[in-house]
Amino acid sequence: MKFVTYESPDHSAPRVGYLDDGDVVDADFDGDMVAFIEAGGRIGSATRHVPDARLLAPLRPRTIRDFLAFEGHLLNAFAGLGKDIPDEWYQVPAHYKGLPDTVIGPEVEIPWPAYTQKLDHELELAAVIGTAGKDIAEVDALDHVFGYTIWNDMSARDVQVRELPVGMGPSKAKDWDGSNILGPCLVTADEIDPHDVDLEVRINGERWGGTNTKDMHHTFESMIAYTSQGLTLRPGEVLGSGTATGGSGLELDRWLQPGDRIEMEASGIGVLRNTVGTPAA
Amino acid sequence: MKFVTYESPDHSAPRVGYLDDGDVVDADFDGDMVAFIEAGGRIGSATRHVPDARLLAPLRPRTIRDFLAFEGHLLNAFAGLGKDIPDEWYQVPAHYKGLPDTVIGPEVEIPWPAYTQKLDHELELAAVIGTAGKDIAEVDALDHVFGYTIWNDMSARDVQVRELPVGMGPSKAKDWDGSNILGPCLVTADEIDPHDVDLEVRINGERWGGTNTKDMHHTFESMIAYTSQGLTLRPGEVLGSGTATGGSGLELDRWLQPGDRIEMEASGIGVLRNTVGTPAA
Repeated sequence: MKFVTYESPDHSAPRVGYLDDGDVVDADFDGDMVAFIEAGGRIGSATRHVPDARLLAPLRPRTIRDFLAFEGHLLNAFAGLGKDIPDEWYQVPAHYKGLPDTVIGPEVEIPWPAYTQKLDHELELAAVIGTAGKDIAEVDALDHVFGYTIWNDMSARDVQVRELPVGMGPSKAKDWDGSNILGPCLVTADEIDPHDVDLEVRINGERWGGTNTKDMHHTFESMIAYTSQGLTLRPGEVLGSGTATGGSGLELDRWLQPGDRIEMEASGIGVLRNTVGTPAA
Repeated sequence: MKFVTYESPDHSAPRVGYLDDGDVVDADFDGDMVAFIEAGGRIGSATRHVPDARLLAPLRPRTIRDFLAFEGHLLNAFAGLGKDIPDEWYQVPAHYKGLPDTVIGPEVEIPWPAYTQKLDHELELAAVIGTAGKDIAEVDALDHVFGYTIWNDMSARDVQVRELPVGMGPSKAKDWDGSNILGPCLVTADEIDPHDVDLEVRINGERWGGTNTKDMHHTFESMIAYTSQGLTLRPGEVLGSGTATGGSGLELDRWLQPGDRIEMEASGIGVLRNTVGTPAA
């Protein structure tokens, strides 16, 4: 099942729906996607097609974490900096936390903040927690996933270079209104094998990069197990794979321009499309 | 005014109150502290004393960010590692984001996660946003603060050493159920000059360290201005000063033990008291 959050002129607030051959069908649920997941993700009896629906981000995450699972991305990114991958990267699935309120959805223009001249995209697969748990074993980890979506983790590379030496991870390099795009839909876990998802990013129709999730050094199982050590994971928390190999312009030294069309495709999920905005004054 | 969140046998859910000479008075507001702040922080007409109130964390933050404002803390922490403070630290108020769901309040036992042998405290002053804003100028920044509280940012130092080389900032070094303690109250901004707050931490009654906030290299004004670049700050977001000079055991190579009594005092706010738990099995 491909769940969505949509808005339409008929409703004052966004609603949960699902895709039926490209059409949006209302799921007959009063509440947002996180509440829907908490309630078990069950569709009501009074579903109906919504011809004028516009898709939003599938959810406002309860939390949003970003890992660094793809060795290929790091090798590409570090090559230009003359750096080696630290040993610790291989040992622990380290991550930073993003800001849930920055999340926007498909088709809207991506804000370009005034403070960066090096705007970049990041192609990621994201898992959404469905069932709460703590100290989750790797073997049980995928049972806690409600579904998967695509995450475009926009980044200000010039700012990232200034922030990283401080050791606190990225902050303004990743945090501005609209800096994280999720969508177009949230595909339930029964339809996705997270070890075999093809990921690709296209800019203005040209393939810039991508890979298959079988190349992840850290798996969603290990990410969930590590994160949940001593910590309760709750429905609606989002864990991102980190950038797929070739999933950023940084790796190619190619840079986005205002008006560029970004398309991120994941097999079994669909295509997340957005246009890059103009730099804020 | 010193606002609190409290629970009592009379109510099924926590409520907003305020301190009157040490007693808790109900604020006559239906909703949590973030809703109270969003509604303007006004007390209702039907206030009443609550003799059996127990204080909780003053709020479940909408977001929680931790900065590194005190040069003295960094000098102490880096001395043992033979490292210098990077130039970038002086230029940008870098920070990481914590997890709102990890926050607990005064007097409860602090969980000691199974995965660390080096549990440490961090003494911090925290500002709570009251009025939303974006691209906030430093000169206007304090107008956006609702009030201040004490933050004990518990840390697993052995894990932090493994996570920092990856460059994503701390994750499990800071994230477990109960790893962040806020309280005991939220003092409104009219009562606090954030440039002149005495901070002290005592372990089992012995002063381990502390300083005055006049020693902050990055001020709350610069932290708010930096954070709000291109990003809307909202009521209930928490910004922490980072560890006060001498505010951690790391700086002294002294380490907490199960049963230790931690007291963190901030002038004008009060004392945040907790006991260290025993390591989880």
